[in-house]
Amino acid sequence: MKAIVTVTLKQGVLDPQGKAIGHALEGLGFAGVGEVRVGKVIEIELAETEASAARATAEAMARRLLANTVIERFEVSLP
Amino acid sequence: MKAIVTVTLKQGVLDPQGKAIGHALEGLGFAGVGEVRVGKVIEIELAETEASAARATAEAMARRLLANTVIERFEVSLP
Repeated sequence: MKAIVTVTLKQGVLDPQGKAIGHALEGLGFAGVGEVRVGKVIEIELAETEASAARATAEAMARRLLANTVIERFEVSLP
Repeated sequence: MKAIVTVTLKQGVLDPQGKAIGHALEGLGFAGVGEVRVGKVIEIELAETEASAARATAEAMARRLLANTVIERFEVSLP
């Protein structure tokens, strides 16, 4: 079963990458660009075949490796 | 209006970052980890207030800056 883990910065955490993208977009002529936030999306093919087991495994993976839970939050979806 | 641009590698494009994460997960004891693919998710606050205009702007941003359309594909969603 495939799981998708989306990792984004928590509110209030500075996002220099997002700021750089925002400035670059303005430099390309896009007007009125507001806040830009960048995160990761990680697709994982899991051995689990049952949804709740797959969700539990993906959440454990996120907590242990995929997300820095001090400054990032994550969401697991099973497409 | 907020737009979310999800950028992922096209099928068939090698993903060394994904492979590294897969090996790391196995090293942490997760069994049966299949293919891992990593992408970016970019949230942009746009000045546009109308959905079709916001979608068109986000797609133009993706083509010009956010995605390398030779090896990446992108999806725009308006939450």
